[in-house]
Amino acid sequence: MNGADSLVKTMLASGVDVCFANPGTSEMHFVAALDSHPDMRCILCLFEGGTSGAADGYYRMTGDVAATMLHLAPGFGNAFANLHNARKAGSGVLNVMGDHATYHLKYDSPLKGETEGVSQAVSHWTRSSLSSADVAQDGADAIRAARAKNGQITTLILPADTAWGDGADPVAAAAPPPLNRPSEALLDAAAEALRRDGAALLIGGAALRGNLLALAGKIAQAARCRLMVPLFSPRLERGQGTVPVEQLMYPVDANAELLKELRSLVCCGTQAPVNFFAYPGKPSLPTPANTHVLDLADPGMDLDFALTGLADRLDAHAQQVHPVALSLPDHPEGPLSPETAGAIIARHLPENAIVVNESVTSGAPIIGATRTAKRHDLLVTMGGAIGQCLPCATGAAVACPDRKVIALTGDGSAMYTLQSLWTMARERLDVTVIVFANRGYQILRGELAAMGVEHVGRNAQAMFDVDDPLLDWVALARGHGVPGVRVTTCDQMDTALADAIAAAGPSLIEVVI
Amino acid sequence: MNGADSLVKTMLASGVDVCFANPGTSEMHFVAALDSHPDMRCILCLFEGGTSGAADGYYRMTGDVAATMLHLAPGFGNAFANLHNARKAGSGVLNVMGDHATYHLKYDSPLKGETEGVSQAVSHWTRSSLSSADVAQDGADAIRAARAKNGQITTLILPADTAWGDGADPVAAAAPPPLNRPSEALLDAAAEALRRDGAALLIGGAALRGNLLALAGKIAQAARCRLMVPLFSPRLERGQGTVPVEQLMYPVDANAELLKELRSLVCCGTQAPVNFFAYPGKPSLPTPANTHVLDLADPGMDLDFALTGLADRLDAHAQQVHPVALSLPDHPEGPLSPETAGAIIARHLPENAIVVNESVTSGAPIIGATRTAKRHDLLVTMGGAIGQCLPCATGAAVACPDRKVIALTGDGSAMYTLQSLWTMARERLDVTVIVFANRGYQILRGELAAMGVEHVGRNAQAMFDVDDPLLDWVALARGHGVPGVRVTTCDQMDTALADAIAAAGPSLIEVVI
Repeated sequence: MNGADSLVKTMLASGVDVCFANPGTSEMHFVAALDSHPDMRCILCLFEGGTSGAADGYYRMTGDVAATMLHLAPGFGNAFANLHNARKAGSGVLNVMGDHATYHLKYDSPLKGETEGVSQAVSHWTRSSLSSADVAQDGADAIRAARAKNGQITTLILPADTAWGDGADPVAAAAPPPLNRPSEALLDAAAEALRRDGAALLIGGAALRGNLLALAGKIAQAARCRLMVPLFSPRLERGQGTVPVEQLMYPVDANAELLKELRSLVCCGTQAPVNFFAYPGKPSLPTPANTHVLDLADPGMDLDFALTGLADRLDAHAQQVHPVALSLPDHPEGPLSPETAGAIIARHLPENAIVVNESVTSGAPIIGATRTAKRHDLLVTMGGAIGQCLPCATGAAVACPDRKVIALTGDGSAMYTLQSLWTMARERLDVTVIVFANRGYQILRGELAAMGVEHVGRNAQAMFDVDDPLLDWVALARGHGVPGVRVTTCDQMDTALADAIAAAGPSLIEVVI
Repeated sequence: MNGADSLVKTMLASGVDVCFANPGTSEMHFVAALDSHPDMRCILCLFEGGTSGAADGYYRMTGDVAATMLHLAPGFGNAFANLHNARKAGSGVLNVMGDHATYHLKYDSPLKGETEGVSQAVSHWTRSSLSSADVAQDGADAIRAARAKNGQITTLILPADTAWGDGADPVAAAAPPPLNRPSEALLDAAAEALRRDGAALLIGGAALRGNLLALAGKIAQAARCRLMVPLFSPRLERGQGTVPVEQLMYPVDANAELLKELRSLVCCGTQAPVNFFAYPGKPSLPTPANTHVLDLADPGMDLDFALTGLADRLDAHAQQVHPVALSLPDHPEGPLSPETAGAIIARHLPENAIVVNESVTSGAPIIGATRTAKRHDLLVTMGGAIGQCLPCATGAAVACPDRKVIALTGDGSAMYTLQSLWTMARERLDVTVIVFANRGYQILRGELAAMGVEHVGRNAQAMFDVDDPLLDWVALARGHGVPGVRVTTCDQMDTALADAIAAAGPSLIEVVI
């Protein structure tokens, strides 16, 4: 048994049995080892950003770690943006990156690169195996670290000779260390803070769904405070039957307006709100200066303990929270727009759908319209690096083969990682991709205006507009083996979406707005 | 004048007037500054790997620096692989990466990332501007560093408030420091080494074209030694009328065979040969253990001085080197294959073409067939990170609007950065893209076999084959606004290539082999 084989057996013994792969020429022994273990599901992505984004989506839906297989330094570079997004989402990901044989590293061969340096810029945990006998234990340590603190990015670097040399016996990863808990004194203070006038409980991470979300609703009702969620959440349960929440906003002024009466804020599973960007003359934080902010638990802590502790102190367990009622919009009249498209999506959203949203400028009306749709999970890009939607939808669909995945993306965003369409076709994933074709980076126009620039000249236009030539998303989908259709009216979109949801397997709808 | 404006003026004052851009929301003042300077040519790429690969191609053809504009950490991550390739090519690139305002960096906002860490893993020079008054001088320093040592990767990080705050006067970049030169004693030793039996002169970098290539030919003839070039060269002048050279090979055993009589090797403009990868039981170096290797000048040194010094010592200046004569193959019979496709390409290659080759497993016969074609420049991927061809061809076409660019790529390679097709269409670049569709990562099959693995099972096959579904390159091209055609016979390819070369602007030929 060589080192690579000991690693694959360690992964399987530790419950890691999905590997999103884009192997290169330095990972051949690892490929051979995977090949001899058909119980490991290997899913090919034609670009590394597809692997890391898929592992992120997989973690969000299963709560457990998938592996990525990445080529040495430049391959990891291609995965970097979606590892950044996964890190911000608090997802656990196990990256296995090949490297040159240890004795070959002293030469400047073409692919020699700073494997540890590029990994450390985004991973919580990085280790380069030193010998084939270490690979099994290193792999187990990496998996344990990926599961620690509710999910971390870990990277195991596997020099070729540590893969082909003699390996040790496989190791099942130890359970991750126990989660940190807030102190009793902090819980007392937090319960007291929620009872004040102008108080809000801001929840994130694992508190955004299931029993914990229900508990948070009871706490807010018992304390008569607001229940809020961040602008972006890794996985938020919403729609019919869920606990109503208020969501923070993107525009700095609107967000400040939303929070202007806030005097006491308790954060559980998320940090205190920070504006996405700084703007000249505007503060970095949306909360008023006289708001008392209490950080009860960060996303890597024991949120069950924290919320149970709050509920105990506020005597909240028996509260009956009025859940969100189903309320669907009428079939919209008029031209296709983010608003009318949002209504159509809300009408068609099937029970238990997974909605992956990176529709950027088209997104807000859709989020509004689906608030009272059938119950669904909403996954959004957490790190602001666009190009996460299609990979994340891929991983979510692998994780939940019995649920419909609806991927909402801007055309600009989708172009970064369009190769994921091929993986959806290859794996017959049940994903309906909706591309909002506004033919440009509309968000940038908005940001330029927010910076006080009114006039858009030739160079700015050249960097904002994607209209010459027009991207043809139906052709791009077909090129990747995915059937597609373009819609320009509400009726066309209504029909196309009904068809896509009724069928199994991937499809794409280009919505021209 | 704000900091961003002072930087744009500094770039223009320093002769940097092309910017391959993929801006994000944190670069808005830089966008506004570019907007007020229409003499800066801004070229939009829909993925950051397109910007860095284009800047590499631009440098190879102009010998001067283009800028990239990249979004903070994850955007730079997307550019990483082709920056790695550019670094290995010895290309000079100026990256301008946005960042959050300095006072916003203490918060963990979604896009906050390790800008300096990810840059340092691939850049020779990294600096984060500390104040808007520093930006002009920092930019000038970055440009000077990018031009130093015949080309380096430099990254200037521009926090948003240093872009919007008051800038200083623009600065023209100082000339780069003088290039290092080999000592007279080393030149004496190198000349002596070339006179020995079994000697070779191995040239690289700027010695691969023009006067320096001609001089190297004279030196080798005077010394009666072999004249060799590395397996990969950033820009090699070849075909009719050029100096004949021997090229190193990829397969370890074939390369060792090629070099088995070598006793004395002088390296000028390149390092001593190193195998691409290590393999179990095989050496890292292809040269025999008893070969005396003399490193005369690395690629960052004064190669003109080094070769002139050798020519002086060997009394080589008056040598008449017999150049490569034009010899074109007949129109091939039989099925379409790398061999027959290579013959067709050689027949049609126009005078002064720029050939960008990343056809990996299909490449060797093409390189052989074009050796005696009309004179052309050959650009190949230097860092082994596939996905460089289409961006590099884009940059080469921007650099040389009067020359035909032929981009040869495998289907696996092209998928990493297919978004560059859109930039070719937007900029009306005269690029003929030839995609060799072997429907898989054939190189990986070869590498697995080289590792001694004979049987390819389900998981390996899932990671090597891109045939379910088939990629439709004609649809992918059309999706990006580029006309395309699929060919399956020699006659079809002959016609398609003749048409593509006769027309101006981008086109794509999918060659099914």
